[in-house]
Amino acid sequence: MRALELRTREGELPRPVLVEKAVPTPRRGEVLVHVAAAPINPNDLLFLRDQYEVKKALPVVPGFEGSGTVVAAGGGFIARTMLGRRVACAAGDGDGTWAEYVAVPAMRCAPLRGGVELEAGATMLTNPLTAWVLATRARREGHRAVVLTAAAGALGRMTSRLMRAQGREVVHVVRRLAQAEALKKEEGATHVLDSSEEGFVEELRALSAKLGVSLALDAVGGETTGQLFAAMPPGSVVRVYGMLSNAPCRVETSDLVFHGKRIEGFTMYEWLESTSTLGQLFAIMKVQGLLGGVLRTQVRARFSLAEHDAALAAAQQGASDGKVLLVP
Amino acid sequence: MRALELRTREGELPRPVLVEKAVPTPRRGEVLVHVAAAPINPNDLLFLRDQYEVKKALPVVPGFEGSGTVVAAGGGFIARTMLGRRVACAAGDGDGTWAEYVAVPAMRCAPLRGGVELEAGATMLTNPLTAWVLATRARREGHRAVVLTAAAGALGRMTSRLMRAQGREVVHVVRRLAQAEALKKEEGATHVLDSSEEGFVEELRALSAKLGVSLALDAVGGETTGQLFAAMPPGSVVRVYGMLSNAPCRVETSDLVFHGKRIEGFTMYEWLESTSTLGQLFAIMKVQGLLGGVLRTQVRARFSLAEHDAALAAAQQGASDGKVLLVP
Repeated sequence: MRALELRTREGELPRPVLVEKAVPTPRRGEVLVHVAAAPINPNDLLFLRDQYEVKKALPVVPGFEGSGTVVAAGGGFIARTMLGRRVACAAGDGDGTWAEYVAVPAMRCAPLRGGVELEAGATMLTNPLTAWVLATRARREGHRAVVLTAAAGALGRMTSRLMRAQGREVVHVVRRLAQAEALKKEEGATHVLDSSEEGFVEELRALSAKLGVSLALDAVGGETTGQLFAAMPPGSVVRVYGMLSNAPCRVETSDLVFHGKRIEGFTMYEWLESTSTLGQLFAIMKVQGLLGGVLRTQVRARFSLAEHDAALAAAQQGASDGKVLLVP
Repeated sequence: MRALELRTREGELPRPVLVEKAVPTPRRGEVLVHVAAAPINPNDLLFLRDQYEVKKALPVVPGFEGSGTVVAAGGGFIARTMLGRRVACAAGDGDGTWAEYVAVPAMRCAPLRGGVELEAGATMLTNPLTAWVLATRARREGHRAVVLTAAAGALGRMTSRLMRAQGREVVHVVRRLAQAEALKKEEGATHVLDSSEEGFVEELRALSAKLGVSLALDAVGGETTGQLFAAMPPGSVVRVYGMLSNAPCRVETSDLVFHGKRIEGFTMYEWLESTSTLGQLFAIMKVQGLLGGVLRTQVRARFSLAEHDAALAAAQQGASDGKVLLVP
């Protein structure tokens, strides 16, 4: 089969190469997925640069998620029930989804409902599911208004749509004027702040107090987290779930000691560990029902495996304009 | 009466001057306390430098706590019941305790039990009560082992004694070798780490994992908070309740996003707001019962108001060797 293989971590963005290799044999509990589509996500770019929390030995096929059809099962009840089904899947510890075939644990496959296209399923387990979990937790905790950073990205837009559909006020924080315009025009966003503007922290403080914000969802980290923390009303939570900035967070100690605020992290790994299989299935079914609506993914471009350089270049241009898909 | 009055914030440590001023008249709900003793605490030094969260207009008499006898009441039921009683007291919004007399809200006075000396009562509402609240919360949350910074200071020693008496393991973090020696010798501490030593973070990480630490109580802030946060096991809480370092906290974003850790602040103001009057009284009675034992305050030196320069110089030498008291 053809696959993209990362063999070195040299260069500003280490690049995989196109190789021919044997189709993997699924072990017990695993299935073999004939890959239909796999996205290039921000965490894939971090992984290429070895800046992601998940580490794998080289050479390795990158790609943390994708979709396709299960064409073989390595044994075990769940694996066998997946045979022949269209699934969304998340890669295991070894080779990933940027290939014609990938062997993944059956537990990491989600069968797709009839109306869901393979292309929509390919990006389901990162953005739509994360947005659903973030918004559901915000609802359960009873936050009336929420600040959202990286609000113009695919995940930000989905999370905002879900939270506004639930009746929550959302303050959208973006890093460029063009993104602010896009959010107002394309998403009907009311509260949009540009963090590159002077006076951003003061504006955020005033707006947060006015709306009664008690939660910030931050995908950026670094300086942004400190700004959010300073601007939030007393008693607020800043939940950091991404590290787009790749810089250390800097928080004034006095902001930390007083006012009863806290900072915490969030990853889907934590959600997976703390949620029952049934709870996960419920979430995945809910999310699939929304893929055509508030959780729709915009696809910017599709590339074959051979076009990997162009695909990576496109993916690096930022996540605001839709996903880049590899279609093996 | 004689009082120390802060009139300017000039100099590295702005100093109050000795003045003659009118004895204050307690308003409704206030009592007049004839001050027996008042400590110079770390938060007083921060206040002099205008680095403390509590701000007051100049000129003002500093001093956040003290003890004495109630010699007049401004009216109101609680104020009248305090008349003639020996009390520990916390200053209100105006003039503080570094004077012969102070007018304070009756709600901020705690009657002293028979066996409690005025001198022991003078320092009760900051260190012993805070230590009791910190340790009680750690017990309620079920932490098996706790990391404690500034462990050689008066508050650190009290908190450690209480937590060890409850059967918790305590990892003591100090900033100088001499403090480590003192803690082992004077307090019988087993786990003591010096944060100025090379390899401190790695040692703290290993020891925390071994003991099952899930809480860090941090009075330092700044770089220390980031070190603690990096070294704590997954799922831990870093609770920052002091800012001895007066520097910003720096935390790696990846440490924040992954591993389900969180950072939060704590102040006694928060405790006062979230605890019923009955709960506060219960705590104050409990604490008084321990002032002769695990919550004993070591007094290093006593100074009259006229000796304020010498008193401040002594207080600046650090909190490890006991409290400096003003005895008007």
